[in-house]
Amino acid sequence: MAIDPSSIFSKLGAFTSDHDSIVSMNLFVALLCACIVIGHLLEENRWMNESITALIIGLCTGVVILLTTGGKSSHLLVFSEDLFFIYLLPPIIFNAGFQVKKKQFFRNFMTIILFGAVGTLISFGIISLGAKYIFEGFNLRRLDIGDYLAIGAIFSATDSVCTLQVLNQDETPLLYSLVFGEGVVNDATSVVLFNAIQSFDLSHINSGIALQFIGNFLYLFILSTLLGVLTGLLSAYIIRKLYFGRHSTDREVALMILMAYMSYMLAELFYLSGILTVFFCGIVMSHYTWHNVTESSRVTTKHAFATLSFVAEIFIFLYVGMDALDIERWRVVSDSPKKSVQFSSILLGLVLIGRAAFVFPLSFLSNLTKKSAHEKVSIRQQVIVWWAGLMRGAVSMALAYNKFALSNTKDKKNAFVITSTITVVLFSTMVFGLMTKPLIRLLLPSPKHLVRMASSEPTTPKSFIVPLLGNGQAIESNQSVPRPSSLRMLLTTPTNTVHYYWRKFDDGFMRPVFGGRGFVPFVPGSPTDRSNH
Amino acid sequence: MAIDPSSIFSKLGAFTSDHDSIVSMNLFVALLCACIVIGHLLEENRWMNESITALIIGLCTGVVILLTTGGKSSHLLVFSEDLFFIYLLPPIIFNAGFQVKKKQFFRNFMTIILFGAVGTLISFGIISLGAKYIFEGFNLRRLDIGDYLAIGAIFSATDSVCTLQVLNQDETPLLYSLVFGEGVVNDATSVVLFNAIQSFDLSHINSGIALQFIGNFLYLFILSTLLGVLTGLLSAYIIRKLYFGRHSTDREVALMILMAYMSYMLAELFYLSGILTVFFCGIVMSHYTWHNVTESSRVTTKHAFATLSFVAEIFIFLYVGMDALDIERWRVVSDSPKKSVQFSSILLGLVLIGRAAFVFPLSFLSNLTKKSAHEKVSIRQQVIVWWAGLMRGAVSMALAYNKFALSNTKDKKNAFVITSTITVVLFSTMVFGLMTKPLIRLLLPSPKHLVRMASSEPTTPKSFIVPLLGNGQAIESNQSVPRPSSLRMLLTTPTNTVHYYWRKFDDGFMRPVFGGRGFVPFVPGSPTDRSNH
Repeated sequence: MAIDPSSIFSKLGAFTSDHDSIVSMNLFVALLCACIVIGHLLEENRWMNESITALIIGLCTGVVILLTTGGKSSHLLVFSEDLFFIYLLPPIIFNAGFQVKKKQFFRNFMTIILFGAVGTLISFGIISLGAKYIFEGFNLRRLDIGDYLAIGAIFSATDSVCTLQVLNQDETPLLYSLVFGEGVVNDATSVVLFNAIQSFDLSHINSGIALQFIGNFLYLFILSTLLGVLTGLLSAYIIRKLYFGRHSTDREVALMILMAYMSYMLAELFYLSGILTVFFCGIVMSHYTWHNVTESSRVTTKHAFATLSFVAEIFIFLYVGMDALDIERWRVVSDSPKKSVQFSSILLGLVLIGRAAFVFPLSFLSNLTKKSAHEKVSIRQQVIVWWAGLMRGAVSMALAYNKFALSNTKDKKNAFVITSTITVVLFSTMVFGLMTKPLIRLLLPSPKHLVRMASSEPTTPKSFIVPLLGNGQAIESNQSVPRPSSLRMLLTTPTNTVHYYWRKFDDGFMRPVFGGRGFVPFVPGSPTDRSNH
Repeated sequence: MAIDPSSIFSKLGAFTSDHDSIVSMNLFVALLCACIVIGHLLEENRWMNESITALIIGLCTGVVILLTTGGKSSHLLVFSEDLFFIYLLPPIIFNAGFQVKKKQFFRNFMTIILFGAVGTLISFGIISLGAKYIFEGFNLRRLDIGDYLAIGAIFSATDSVCTLQVLNQDETPLLYSLVFGEGVVNDATSVVLFNAIQSFDLSHINSGIALQFIGNFLYLFILSTLLGVLTGLLSAYIIRKLYFGRHSTDREVALMILMAYMSYMLAELFYLSGILTVFFCGIVMSHYTWHNVTESSRVTTKHAFATLSFVAEIFIFLYVGMDALDIERWRVVSDSPKKSVQFSSILLGLVLIGRAAFVFPLSFLSNLTKKSAHEKVSIRQQVIVWWAGLMRGAVSMALAYNKFALSNTKDKKNAFVITSTITVVLFSTMVFGLMTKPLIRLLLPSPKHLVRMASSEPTTPKSFIVPLLGNGQAIESNQSVPRPSSLRMLLTTPTNTVHYYWRKFDDGFMRPVFGGRGFVPFVPGSPTDRSNH
């Protein structure tokens, strides 16, 4: 008998084609669980939040792996842009659109676009120019003009997750919608910008190209938004027509998830901005589609999207933490540690300046157009908006990898930019992130605003229970009844006039066709019927 | 100005690293949506069901792609075992365990194991031996002993999804639990068997090796089950301890999904049977963990798991349909079409015989141990059990690819086995599948049993609404109160005595530790409190 029992055990029962990857996946899933549990335990902590926890756990794991493999590797998974841009980013952005308070978002729409698009361009310009002149003056590195512009785009991509975890949507609706909306538009702007730079011939820049650039920019913004809205409406229409009176929760949930994902992929197919598309698809789906499905589907989709987004965020921070210790790149820059620190500090300084350079002037401009005091952005709120956008996160990492990691890692220039990006991401997320809770507590000394802080659910549990007990019409009732203040403003500000006509159009044409709150008639077996059994 | 505007558009806004794959993904997601919509429309049809719809849509798409690419390819995605065994199978099997009616399942546990494990071994033996003698006699192909045993394992893996879509868990609980349980145990048995064959030295078979084989088999079964139970209990314990009085739906849902997935990956890590592990993890999670979470989490997990499983099933059938037209393989066998048809028909015949050879004798054996008439498997039910296991599906395909597609596809022997597998899978799913609804209607002429047929939800909507309105304790109330018949049987049959002691142990020790129905005390903010707001 020439059989080795250990080899039998090792092959019986499993496809062992790639056992190493199974080990990695186990570890990674276990780490995700650990992040969730530890994040929950630290919820009441005055400094920590989920992102920082995941980042620190990632770093620690990286160290452990580095030590156990004898300094060879600190990775469990290989960072792939595709993984990030095709699987992790879409659920986060879609959920952002799905859970956003639409009324607040659209009321501050112009300010959000001003901060998100114009602000990001200003920040991009300052960081690019600053990097160019300082680094050339210091004779630090020889980078070409394309590299400087790419650095500008990379360090203009903010990550406001940390701040959003601390802010409360109900307590400070204006501030929340500003920080939140700016974050999404900023993501889209910096990715579009980054891709635009890569495709333009940068050797001769003139005003014609600049105009063309702005034209393309607007074209992308408008088309991406339209695509998202159309996909959302299509999903509402299909579910409304097909499932009328005969519902199947699993099919509805599957269709919503698949169509949300398809909106993103369609945008990528047509070379549009998937981030904007999936964001607006989320908004439309929560306004129409979500009201056409069963109670069970509503609860399931709300929480399934939130959970997906939550896990994707933790995944990214965990990964960034682990990836920060890529030993190959650090080895390349280790012969000039002083230069490396200088490089990173200068970039961090440019980030601080670049952000201050647009938040305060643009807030001033925005305040000029507002008449009522509580619509204006106070100076304290401006500081928080400025602070919220100081953190750099996974988008910066992904863009840096895209531009500077495709060629070999031993190239000194590339290693320098990537290690600086990692340094800036880690420093800003950890140091600025840890200071966020105390800072906001200092600037907004509301007794209540920290009650629900760091909860991963932007909507309170109440809002899910109400539609389950009632007829699904109780939800958003506080939004549909015009408040006294909005009635008054209707006569004074143009935004509310737009809102008034939108409501007329929505109630008169859109909702009868696409469904929506209060426009799903009662039929036996339909969502409105289910809850009475 | 040397800029081509089209190239700007083509690069602005999207990472175009692999645009072809984006096209494929869009098409695939669109096809999944189409399958769901068409499946819903055909729900009332007397022949069709979701699997067959997906298979046909897959075939049609394959033809279209074949024509548009000029006969080069019929694929959108490359079939990968990893995709199947790591991403698609786990949610299906987990959901099976999560939604199964545990009492029925454990009451028929011995019969299920008899059919699923012993039956699969009998079927495997008959198909292997039959193939060996017939093909050697016909001088059809020269295959070695390992190939014949692999063919036996490949064609012993059944796919009872079609039948389960037609059967009703409430109308025919015994039959449903038999077909359902046998399906899961059969999946695990055939995968374990297949791997065992690959790792054993088949040149000298003797009784010692056979004993060792059976020993390993039992070892795998017991350890896999234990691992699943332990992971499930761990999840229950963690959620019960951590979330006591302070719940977060997203974290709970994320933890449940991640730990369910981890149970599968852990089993693969330890070379155990992931299928069995994740199945028992599902059972334990639905018995303990599910009762420790908020109402919203309960609804979300139930439907999220069902949806994942539903999409994965459609995905598989769609894929199998598309993959059936792999032109390379058909070209290789096209010079001997007669032999190819003979080969497939013989295999199909062996499948029919192999299944009949154990269903009827084992049913007879099982009936001998049962005293009450309504616990016995009637002859009509035996025919349905036999029929339910005639279909061959994705597991067969994946196993066939694993063994016969790793070497080059132009090898004649390999192409022959794979095309025959595709033929048997397509023929059995389409022809037998189409006849399933009429056959069951003929054999079980109950007026009610077709009311909810082909619904993708194994549990009725009622069971979700009840716990949302009450305190979460109303669910399963029909199971917890011992029925008169089970009280009577308690005294006569050993199964129920086991069940009685299990209940005592469960109520006395397990539930106080791990939570479960009725054992989650009332605390403000806890699940039992939420629903009262």
